[in-house]
Amino acid sequence: MILTDIASHIAGTLYGDGSLEINAINDLHSSSQGQLSFVLEKQYIQLAQCSEASAFITFKYIDNLNNQIVIDSPKKALSDVIMLFKESITSAYVSKHTATISQDAIISDSAFISEHCSIGDRTVISANVSIGYNCQIGSDVFIHPNVTLYDHTIIRDKVTIHAGSVIGSDGFGYYKDSDQWFKVPHIGYVQIDDNVEIGANTCIDRGCIGLTHIMSGCKIDNLVHIAHNTIMEPHVAIAAQVGFTGSTFIGKHVMIGGQAGVDAAKIGTHAIITAKAGVTKNVDDYQMVSGFPAWDHKKELKKEALLRKKIS
Amino acid sequence: MILTDIASHIAGTLYGDGSLEINAINDLHSSSQGQLSFVLEKQYIQLAQCSEASAFITFKYIDNLNNQIVIDSPKKALSDVIMLFKESITSAYVSKHTATISQDAIISDSAFISEHCSIGDRTVISANVSIGYNCQIGSDVFIHPNVTLYDHTIIRDKVTIHAGSVIGSDGFGYYKDSDQWFKVPHIGYVQIDDNVEIGANTCIDRGCIGLTHIMSGCKIDNLVHIAHNTIMEPHVAIAAQVGFTGSTFIGKHVMIGGQAGVDAAKIGTHAIITAKAGVTKNVDDYQMVSGFPAWDHKKELKKEALLRKKIS
Amino acid sequence: MILTDIASHIAGTLYGDGSLEINAINDLHSSSQGQLSFVLEKQYIQLAQCSEASAFITFKYIDNLNNQIVIDSPKKALSDVIMLFKESITSAYVSKHTATISQDAIISDSAFISEHCSIGDRTVISANVSIGYNCQIGSDVFIHPNVTLYDHTIIRDKVTIHAGSVIGSDGFGYYKDSDQWFKVPHIGYVQIDDNVEIGANTCIDRGCIGLTHIMSGCKIDNLVHIAHNTIMEPHVAIAAQVGFTGSTFIGKHVMIGGQAGVDAAKIGTHAIITAKAGVTKNVDDYQMVSGFPAWDHKKELKKEALLRKKIS
Repeated sequence: MILTDIASHIAGTLYGDGSLEINAINDLHSSSQGQLSFVLEKQYIQLAQCSEASAFITFKYIDNLNNQIVIDSPKKALSDVIMLFKESITSAYVSKHTATISQDAIISDSAFISEHCSIGDRTVISANVSIGYNCQIGSDVFIHPNVTLYDHTIIRDKVTIHAGSVIGSDGFGYYKDSDQWFKVPHIGYVQIDDNVEIGANTCIDRGCIGLTHIMSGCKIDNLVHIAHNTIMEPHVAIAAQVGFTGSTFIGKHVMIGGQAGVDAAKIGTHAIITAKAGVTKNVDDYQMVSGFPAWDHKKELKKEALLRKKIS
Repeated sequence: MILTDIASHIAGTLYGDGSLEINAINDLHSSSQGQLSFVLEKQYIQLAQCSEASAFITFKYIDNLNNQIVIDSPKKALSDVIMLFKESITSAYVSKHTATISQDAIISDSAFISEHCSIGDRTVISANVSIGYNCQIGSDVFIHPNVTLYDHTIIRDKVTIHAGSVIGSDGFGYYKDSDQWFKVPHIGYVQIDDNVEIGANTCIDRGCIGLTHIMSGCKIDNLVHIAHNTIMEPHVAIAAQVGFTGSTFIGKHVMIGGQAGVDAAKIGTHAIITAKAGVTKNVDDYQMVSGFPAWDHKKELKKEALLRKKIS
Repeated sequence: MILTDIASHIAGTLYGDGSLEINAINDLHSSSQGQLSFVLEKQYIQLAQCSEASAFITFKYIDNLNNQIVIDSPKKALSDVIMLFKESITSAYVSKHTATISQDAIISDSAFISEHCSIGDRTVISANVSIGYNCQIGSDVFIHPNVTLYDHTIIRDKVTIHAGSVIGSDGFGYYKDSDQWFKVPHIGYVQIDDNVEIGANTCIDRGCIGLTHIMSGCKIDNLVHIAHNTIMEPHVAIAAQVGFTGSTFIGKHVMIGGQAGVDAAKIGTHAIITAKAGVTKNVDDYQMVSGFPAWDHKKELKKEALLRKKIS
């Protein structure tokens, strides 16, 4: 597909080389030559200027950026472009067992594995597990019963996923038009690196474009919600019932207490977020935060102590 | 069954026509002629006086209401009457595939579909889905793996349900007698209208009597809890990990942030409930509320700012 | 295995009879003769001195306690000893139907039941349920679709478990070494007594050693998280989305409101914990607590009222 065609499909204004061939869409981080990416908010301009994407869909004209299509309604344009590039796999979970499975793997007869999957040595796939199209699962992985992996999920080695968890469901992304919600299609995927353990009935959404990435050694408890395009660096520990909104970045060695929530912020390495906190802005490396909106833990303790002193 | 027999079964005092034939029980909203309904708390008296039900079980004698059975122990009487009308379907999920399935539907061999179900055109039922007795599923519906639909669930057209979600489980309704909990049977059902999307591992309980109703265009994220007899008007958006107690009413176009809770209140149209709020009373149309107990959002911001100023 | 061998395996210092034969490891409550138990924190010393275990692994030398192995790194030693005694059952959920099943039980063809299970009279096992190795399930139990029971789970009579719940997953227990998380193996189990009802998509983790115990008549709503070694006395009621950390003790007749959290505390009988509270220390019998950290409910109301008066 060439850039002129994409611009006309979404009624955008093209600046640059309309004959440019676009092979795929991708997020700003992961884009390479021949790919189209998106700059739909001010905060992503700097990242776009460093991106290797060959073209961009932008919310306004941006200096020092090649091949832009400027549009008015960013989320609608995003949806329309994703639909242009989306593969159609409606047969998910209804195809036959044609995966490449190691002879050493242990697969329950009651598990369902879709086409084009690969499963490594000594990996256990338990009863009533459902694995979508084109998933890659490494060695020494243990997937407990009733887990669902959506299409294109990547699981590296020595990963454990407890029962009922869902990896790769669509993120919660919609735009409003004429007072109705329209879905932003999600064509990204989830990647889970070595030695990660995921509790029971936890949900990790796929990226909208690009990936949701749980890096090596992370430990995630039960009933946790991890939204689309979250990036979690190695050795993070997340207690039960924590929730993340989309596009959150969690630095390595972070610890998060139960029932906390994190809203699209960047959490510095070794930070500690206490139970029930609600994080609404970035947290520094090694900082400990509490309360809602979350701030310095000691100040929160002081505030609450002061308040309670007045009540007898 | 005639009214005299019901009154004697629950040891209630009958006012009115004891020979009246009762065909079914129903909630106050949905009742029609020949049906029996319930007025177990003061707040429902006005609704009862407008109801088309032919008879009522009441917690005290109510003026201007035909055919009443007045009882002492409302929740126990409710349970006993429900048991009189309850169908017995113990074979749930163990019957054969005898559903009416469109030839255009795509049904995984690993899905389980009980008797008396119907499934519309182009609908996809994925692996390890369990569908109870007498469910009606429309066209262009996509049900992802490991979803459970309990008996009598109604799903209209173009609905998407992500993996692991449970639609139609019993509500959390018990009454106490001799210091033990006894179950109030749940014989209602869930209805989900056109264009609704439901995230992964979300739970929507059936009505106790009557329905839990998610109207067209609502978008519900992962790990949400929606209790029995909740009514959600069109185009509502609910973020992850939100919880509702029973009998909540959510007006159209409401938006609710992650980890908020709503307790049996009426939420006006276009209201906004921010993340982590705890709503304990009605919210006006277009109002924005925060905090716990939830109140005006600006006041909550002011309160928190004032408090934090004192800490340095 | 004799005590000397265990001491040398974990590089601990042995006080007592090294030739003592150890048959099993167990928690302090449940240990009997021939068993080894653990005293890894100060608060467990008194409990150890009353325990019937024949030997102990301790974090320091303890007076009046026979046969101790004192070690430096408690959680690592705990892990190493558990691994010595851990049965290896890697074939979980992939074996054939060889369970002892009552002729009166109703078992879906789509359910999976592992070896060495027993299932009582009139019990219903629904479609896509996965039952691990050596589970014992009583009479008149109803297990709804897509439920997972891990190995060694015990379910007594008249229990109902709603769809998607997970019973017996590993607790969230890790220790840090060289800046990485290492898993403490979980070899305990879950026991659920008569007349318990468990909602949809709820998670109850197995004990690390010993059991997680839900006693008779408890009622638990949807999406609740119950961590390892929680002990819940009879007739407790837990609303949706509540979470418990490990080793919590809940007295009989306690009631807990939605989205509350309880952190390793002892909750006295008949106590009430209101919605969204965060309990960080013990609660007295009949006490009603709110807020975070939770304290007297009336004081919390007073505090919030006072605060809000200042905002106009």
